[in-house]
Amino acid sequence: MPKVERANSLTARGGGPAVVPAVAPPRPHVPTRPSRSRKARWIDPFEAREIRRLVREFGSPLLIVDCERVRQQYRQLNRALPGVLLHYALKPMPHPAVVRTVYAMGGNLDLATTGEVDLVARMGLDPQRCIHTHPIKRDSDIVDALRRGITLFVADNHDEVRKFARHRGKAQLLLRVSFRSPGAVCDLSRKFGCEPAMAVDVLLAAHQLGLQAHGISFHVGSQQTRLGAWDSALAEAKAIFDALTGHGITLQMVNLGGGFPTRYLKQVPGTGQYANAIHEALTKHFGNAIPETIIEPGRGMVGNAGVIKAEVVLISKKHVNDTQRWVYLDIGKFGGLAETMDEAIRYPIVTAKDGDAKAPCVIAGPTCDSADVLYEKTPYDLPVTLTVGDEVLIEATGAYTTTYASVAFNGFEPLTAYVI
Amino acid sequence: MPKVERANSLTARGGGPAVVPAVAPPRPHVPTRPSRSRKARWIDPFEAREIRRLVREFGSPLLIVDCERVRQQYRQLNRALPGVLLHYALKPMPHPAVVRTVYAMGGNLDLATTGEVDLVARMGLDPQRCIHTHPIKRDSDIVDALRRGITLFVADNHDEVRKFARHRGKAQLLLRVSFRSPGAVCDLSRKFGCEPAMAVDVLLAAHQLGLQAHGISFHVGSQQTRLGAWDSALAEAKAIFDALTGHGITLQMVNLGGGFPTRYLKQVPGTGQYANAIHEALTKHFGNAIPETIIEPGRGMVGNAGVIKAEVVLISKKHVNDTQRWVYLDIGKFGGLAETMDEAIRYPIVTAKDGDAKAPCVIAGPTCDSADVLYEKTPYDLPVTLTVGDEVLIEATGAYTTTYASVAFNGFEPLTAYVI
Repeated sequence: MPKVERANSLTARGGGPAVVPAVAPPRPHVPTRPSRSRKARWIDPFEAREIRRLVREFGSPLLIVDCERVRQQYRQLNRALPGVLLHYALKPMPHPAVVRTVYAMGGNLDLATTGEVDLVARMGLDPQRCIHTHPIKRDSDIVDALRRGITLFVADNHDEVRKFARHRGKAQLLLRVSFRSPGAVCDLSRKFGCEPAMAVDVLLAAHQLGLQAHGISFHVGSQQTRLGAWDSALAEAKAIFDALTGHGITLQMVNLGGGFPTRYLKQVPGTGQYANAIHEALTKHFGNAIPETIIEPGRGMVGNAGVIKAEVVLISKKHVNDTQRWVYLDIGKFGGLAETMDEAIRYPIVTAKDGDAKAPCVIAGPTCDSADVLYEKTPYDLPVTLTVGDEVLIEATGAYTTTYASVAFNGFEPLTAYVI
Repeated sequence: MPKVERANSLTARGGGPAVVPAVAPPRPHVPTRPSRSRKARWIDPFEAREIRRLVREFGSPLLIVDCERVRQQYRQLNRALPGVLLHYALKPMPHPAVVRTVYAMGGNLDLATTGEVDLVARMGLDPQRCIHTHPIKRDSDIVDALRRGITLFVADNHDEVRKFARHRGKAQLLLRVSFRSPGAVCDLSRKFGCEPAMAVDVLLAAHQLGLQAHGISFHVGSQQTRLGAWDSALAEAKAIFDALTGHGITLQMVNLGGGFPTRYLKQVPGTGQYANAIHEALTKHFGNAIPETIIEPGRGMVGNAGVIKAEVVLISKKHVNDTQRWVYLDIGKFGGLAETMDEAIRYPIVTAKDGDAKAPCVIAGPTCDSADVLYEKTPYDLPVTLTVGDEVLIEATGAYTTTYASVAFNGFEPLTAYVI
């Protein structure tokens, strides 16, 4: 049986220094083997065998999600941000076992649609530990969520606020504000959030409709690595709090959103650095009158908890002067790796032959769609000895893989997740 | 009941001249009403009522596929390209009722994966009317297809050809060649197809392995509107035929691929113009020794046969100086309109209020994903009177909508298709 080398996603790879300590010690029932190098450790044969058994049962490709890693990440965030309410955003990985893991740790939930509200209701979870944060809803979505017992909602414009007029006394509103930051890696501000100049007006309108203007909400951008983002956002948030105070309204909450990154191949700041940045910004702008605060990690909670087992379908050169091989895997953009679009996210890929010499490859998915290419502009180093049928482990794939997968494009089944 | 205005997708819109005549006359049981304008006609109330009934049963959004339009398109292609074998590529719309419609008209099928092979086998269709055209397959895919009775396959490199060595005498091979054309709208040549300079070598290798080198295959690019594409490709194809003749091997088939466009908002050449371009190029390069020819329309067969009924969830302005409204629909990039990526495809959108004044809008989908915006760089004109809850019909949505839809992103069910 070939050994499979795996680097812990949270330890250093590619020569860079470790940013955060490893958070996923082997589970108790898994005997450990000594590390083969300081950068990577060998998966225990039991674990490799277990993956292989699961693949035999469920087929390849297969996403395996490790709830122990979710717990570790929860503990780390909770420790780093004491006093901040943690609401797990279901969107990247809504598997009930994952939701229940966070909930059992004491975490709360961030829901965005009636589908997600229904899921949580079917699981029998306390609606008072859930908030509904989608700024765009049908009337029926609001009615359904209220009926389920959810009371805290988000809106970002006058029209959406008016939908709540008939629910006065039952709903608390956070106003989502968009703070444009030209330096942000991924600017979420276009689709959601009203501009700060309009915020006071909308909150006043909510108040005049008899609704409880409870606070404001923002999102610094997905996979945010610029720690100053929270400082400028909280400065503007404080200005809105002050303006409302001038109208006799006391806002009580700031929803700090998500943005906590997963560690892919590129270096990202550690949880502690994020926590410090947020804590310092809160203290700097709100002094000793810090409001209730919420964070909504999604990717940051589950990204590193998943690994996809996949296989090499073909390796070929198709041009006489090709210097690079094309490596075709049995998973691609449509089967779960949609976030490789524009090669935005570079997943760590581990093989049993990583000790051999490596050379750059183009990596493509299995469909007959020409857009289904994962890495081409920046080719990916893979072992020169890699052959058809070899296994690969695609790490840090816990977020936005099963949920972005297409229904059955080209006759391929959607990605299966197995949660351990 | 509001009237719903619908333009026939195959008649002129936006002031351009009609390129092809309307091909979808009302079905016999639907009484017609006089056109309200030369550019659009009103849906008959029965038809609108029927759509509404379906939506009540299956929810919104809902894709409705009209098999009569598929039949019309089949007839049109078949008439325009006499002697060319028509293989419907399942990929954009594999609904069994659609597959059966094409098959019942005498059409053949173009399959790409074991999932598609299984579907056709379950339907009891003749495998000899199917070809397997995916250049990248697992060994098990080849074995499965052969076991089902499929004998014509596509490969594009030495390694893939070698997979067939143990099936000599059972499989015929087409070599997929990529003809780079810098002017092509969508270049499919990177992922699939060997370069012409390597083609002779790979075909000779197949022959030496005892396989039947049957011909060549190419694809001029999806939604191809440059009619000269077939001329240059067939010139190169002929050169490969001649080179093989020099080695005593007579190739017999050219698979002309797909590329036939669907008419979205942008003008495209008509089927007749495509047919002429192909016919002229075949005659020019092959004279009176024209080989067997195959075409593989996918989008071109079903794109115009589908319409999505959707609803407006919210219309808002979120910036004090916003000149454009944001219109949020209950369908977006993840629910079936993935091909709006980079605003590449502009679907015709029809509302009951199209007679009113229009103004540009940003159109976005319902998920809480900031990437779920359909048209923003080039805003879309919609009636100024459009309001929350209004119905919209998104036309020409028969291709790549159900199949690209994500499994359940953000708790939304995948797009339902109802085939009439």
